[in-house]
Amino acid sequence: MTGTLTIAGIGPGDEAMVTPEVSAALAAATDILGYAPYVERVRPRTGAALHPSDNRMELQRAGEALRLASEGHHVVVVSSGDPGVFAMASAVFEALEDSPEWQALPIRVLPGVTAMLAAAARVGAPLGHDFCAINLSDNLKPWPTIEKRLRLAVEADFAIAMYNPRSASRPEGFARALKVLSEAGCDERIVIFARALTTPEEKIETVMLREARPEMADMRTLVIVGNSATRRVGDWVYAPRHVR
Amino acid sequence: MTGTLTIAGIGPGDEAMVTPEVSAALAAATDILGYAPYVERVRPRTGAALHPSDNRMELQRAGEALRLASEGHHVVVVSSGDPGVFAMASAVFEALEDSPEWQALPIRVLPGVTAMLAAAARVGAPLGHDFCAINLSDNLKPWPTIEKRLRLAVEADFAIAMYNPRSASRPEGFARALKVLSEAGCDERIVIFARALTTPEEKIETVMLREARPEMADMRTLVIVGNSATRRVGDWVYAPRHVR
Repeated sequence: MTGTLTIAGIGPGDEAMVTPEVSAALAAATDILGYAPYVERVRPRTGAALHPSDNRMELQRAGEALRLASEGHHVVVVSSGDPGVFAMASAVFEALEDSPEWQALPIRVLPGVTAMLAAAARVGAPLGHDFCAINLSDNLKPWPTIEKRLRLAVEADFAIAMYNPRSASRPEGFARALKVLSEAGCDERIVIFARALTTPEEKIETVMLREARPEMADMRTLVIVGNSATRRVGDWVYAPRHVR
Repeated sequence: MTGTLTIAGIGPGDEAMVTPEVSAALAAATDILGYAPYVERVRPRTGAALHPSDNRMELQRAGEALRLASEGHHVVVVSSGDPGVFAMASAVFEALEDSPEWQALPIRVLPGVTAMLAAAARVGAPLGHDFCAINLSDNLKPWPTIEKRLRLAVEADFAIAMYNPRSASRPEGFARALKVLSEAGCDERIVIFARALTTPEEKIETVMLREARPEMADMRTLVIVGNSATRRVGDWVYAPRHVR
């Protein structure tokens, strides 16, 4: 086995946020796999064979990547943002668990700038104090688990980064999440909607939770709910470092 | 006012993880401020005047950076990892709140690869499911708040990234954190100690929580506690995407 598998984070969108080690991996790849829009993003960086696939195909894609690497290819699986945050790395290790014959393959995970860090940077520092990250998709976990985690996150007074808040196939969940947060006493918290971050279509809105509407989010939006101390200074939003 | 202030994340240590936009900002700076070891790291990248300072000097450093920018300098404040995660961005906005005369200054925050993402990538994908990040330093918040957040994080079944677990001036806190987690039923959880990530001194240990000792962490260590489903596959550790 002389192939390799690299799981690489290509950041939120702006090429200036792709790390040099990820750029080097893309340039050296023989095969690149990933959700089609992410594969399209890296096309100019590589002469590799491109294997785009649909979303929700994560496990099949991971298995295909392992198979190609086992046949001697130098495979890169691309994820938007960071591959370890609600992205392809877990899917690859899940596939590896099902296929012990591939566990000796040389695998590397290359981190990237995940969406919540890029969103936070655009508005100030809303993740400057303790925070959590919750995937709102209920494809892979029951909705009551999501609600419970939101309530506990409020009780802990974490800022809350919400990934995958809303999609065409799951239009209802985000409205329920906003309701849970409102019932937990968050109406006066600052909420940031960051869509298509660092791309030409970027749109960022900052509102109070009581003003937030489900339609403000779609599948390209990252939502951050501030903690109880998160405040504005000028055009910026930040979480104070102190708890008094 | 023609000066600028950029708050830049220089990643965990490896130069191959510094984003191109941060490299460009460092190359264009007239003045670079930061904790001395981080300023030393960027010395080869810049001809700027270097202003190293001690840790715990964050607010003074932020004020100095704003003052230099207000006088026309192109100032970069460097943080290890990401500047928005327990780092300089919040301190700058705190200083800005105290000095409204500087609120019109052009400020940019440039994200970076924060330590928990680099640590996760080294061992697999322990942050592949919902997680939280807690700063264990009690310089800026009371210890009971930290304990409460740890307990709620366990109840939510988040993986837990712990920043600044232990320092010479705070040798006791991390032992207390491990005790809280043990009492909360986490003895059989996987814990990752990632020290001096991506540097030549990197050392990574993965143990069960019941085997974890306070001395395994110091001020250069990032600790990740897995969630209840986090598992090993071969040499890797990952959080399954599903909750069943």
